[in-house]
Amino acid sequence: MNTQFPHERILMGPGPSPVPQRVLRALSAPTLGHLDPQYLAIMDETCEMLRQVMRTRNPLTFPVSGTGMAGMECVAVNLVEPGDEVVVCVNGVFGGRMKDVMERCGATVHVVEAPWGETIPHDKIAGVLARNPGVRLVGIVHAETSTGAHQPIEGLAEIVHAKGAMLVVDAVTSLGGHDVRVDDWGIDALYSGTQKCLGCPPGLSPVTMGERALARLDARKTKPQSWYLDVTLLRKYYLAGGGGGARVYHHTAPINMTYALREALAIVLEEGLDARVARHAAVHQRLRAGLEQMGLRYIPSHSLHTLNCISIPEGADDAGTRRRLLEEYGIEIGAGLGVMAGKAWRIGLMGHGATVRNVDLVLAALRAVLGR
Amino acid sequence: MNTQFPHERILMGPGPSPVPQRVLRALSAPTLGHLDPQYLAIMDETCEMLRQVMRTRNPLTFPVSGTGMAGMECVAVNLVEPGDEVVVCVNGVFGGRMKDVMERCGATVHVVEAPWGETIPHDKIAGVLARNPGVRLVGIVHAETSTGAHQPIEGLAEIVHAKGAMLVVDAVTSLGGHDVRVDDWGIDALYSGTQKCLGCPPGLSPVTMGERALARLDARKTKPQSWYLDVTLLRKYYLAGGGGGARVYHHTAPINMTYALREALAIVLEEGLDARVARHAAVHQRLRAGLEQMGLRYIPSHSLHTLNCISIPEGADDAGTRRRLLEEYGIEIGAGLGVMAGKAWRIGLMGHGATVRNVDLVLAALRAVLGR
Repeated sequence: MNTQFPHERILMGPGPSPVPQRVLRALSAPTLGHLDPQYLAIMDETCEMLRQVMRTRNPLTFPVSGTGMAGMECVAVNLVEPGDEVVVCVNGVFGGRMKDVMERCGATVHVVEAPWGETIPHDKIAGVLARNPGVRLVGIVHAETSTGAHQPIEGLAEIVHAKGAMLVVDAVTSLGGHDVRVDDWGIDALYSGTQKCLGCPPGLSPVTMGERALARLDARKTKPQSWYLDVTLLRKYYLAGGGGGARVYHHTAPINMTYALREALAIVLEEGLDARVARHAAVHQRLRAGLEQMGLRYIPSHSLHTLNCISIPEGADDAGTRRRLLEEYGIEIGAGLGVMAGKAWRIGLMGHGATVRNVDLVLAALRAVLGR
Repeated sequence: MNTQFPHERILMGPGPSPVPQRVLRALSAPTLGHLDPQYLAIMDETCEMLRQVMRTRNPLTFPVSGTGMAGMECVAVNLVEPGDEVVVCVNGVFGGRMKDVMERCGATVHVVEAPWGETIPHDKIAGVLARNPGVRLVGIVHAETSTGAHQPIEGLAEIVHAKGAMLVVDAVTSLGGHDVRVDDWGIDALYSGTQKCLGCPPGLSPVTMGERALARLDARKTKPQSWYLDVTLLRKYYLAGGGGGARVYHHTAPINMTYALREALAIVLEEGLDARVARHAAVHQRLRAGLEQMGLRYIPSHSLHTLNCISIPEGADDAGTRRRLLEEYGIEIGAGLGVMAGKAWRIGLMGHGATVRNVDLVLAALRAVLGR
């Protein structure tokens, strides 16, 4: 019998984040069939809780059967047709990926750039929209996991909708940790991941699409290039419960991951969204104060609470420091990504891991390892 | 606290199949980061065990981060470019899906058809290849989950390779239950699912690609239309361990699902592939004898051992019978799919569920419910 079992880590990198025992226990419940009435009830409940956490009434709100990037791809392949003009905001790795994904869908992409670590001014987006009246969609990352920049979203939909375009938001590293208000902010499509601030293992990508998005989908002239992520087919499975019709089998959903997500969402809702956002803010302030006291500097001008991206101090050994944190303390923090490789560390305070205990521990460990 | 926990079922449908407790326990091990050395070791071990179970030495053998249909799509988007001519064999739902997926990749698809329940004669494929010398790829389903037909694969690669094409095989419902010999049979790319004969929850799709497939990938003129499934990027993460280079982060893999797959593969290899295939054959014979004694008739001319597709007998109530099996016995069997809806039942004997105990139980339950 294989008894190998990994040593537990304190996950303080860019995700996955620590998973509560309650969620791990739910994950290991007996596997059901994907058309079992018990499972369908669990899935409907999960979708309803997702609506609450995303603050939306969108009927089409469900977990895509893949990790966060599958959510990005799901939104892109359904809402973009070859030849469409779109705007993508790029100020880090994930904006860059969104551009790549949209281009693979055949889109002509107008890029709105900001330096890594900065946010994108709304008036810059308005300017590009004014010069390109054919744009159908604007894509932007709420929480840029590569730089820790916290992008303001509120108010952007008005600018985008005034030009007849849709607003697509990447909320992978913000949902469940920062305020995310799909309906109030007028977001037309949004995707996230389970392994960040929702406190669930990776494997699903919550997605929501509003009326404008569904109208775009219905008006398509071509099939989406992905069968696996085709929402026209997926909605016959996920939405039939609400729509009254019979469910149409599409693919076998990751059953046990759905159990885990439901439990994770239950924990989020028990805490309450406002309390949860406040907790993430408070631990971020505590970490920030401690890091700055040590002379460490934040890279983004407007930092996320959930991910803290700091410059590696002069003379410090990047890989050696991370290795000592991992080996001596069992703490994982993240390396720099993209142009920030070797220049930045990323300390995550997400979901179950966003605690005073973890903040004080990582500060103590960094002080010891860096000799500060 | 949410204490809802599903009632256990005896899963004897077309998948998911019953998951051993060992696998469920592995699934709930502490979540690690996707770049943690411990996780990378677990992943490398998982890929090595997959090679053994697939009987291949292909370095590129790994679990795609999605369910079985994601594996089909992964193979298609990487090996097909717009304008490519391909052959797809269609004798049920999954061959039909392969055609759809290939067309969404821009392929011109030549269909080789057989009636549902029949297998595809190799000489029919040879004929289509002879008439269409530009064909680059032949796709075929080894275990057609919609009809229970067991397609012979051995000998086909010689026909396909002689015309300069590649052989792609769907082994979703056969891997771990029937003989699947990637190298001996000359298969160039193959995908499967975790939730059938491997005895793992759904959520991953094991894929392998051989030299011809990788050469085709390297010769592409365009990027694959999917970023999430782009093997040129994925191999930098999954293969770096063997290739000596540094691993390049692509996406966050479903960590806990990898634990489960490793444990499930360990169970397969402990039993031994030959013994496992023999066990599936033996329980199938026992079930078949019992069903035929009751006057029930198999639909496919050449039946899978892992999935038993039978005609619903005259006068029997399709949904009512399945509901009684579920409610009174906790047994799930499958309904007919596609053109067989309302006409067939599908009884799975897969992995952990392929036992004499389950055979005798389902026979007793059917006898009672059908009054035979």
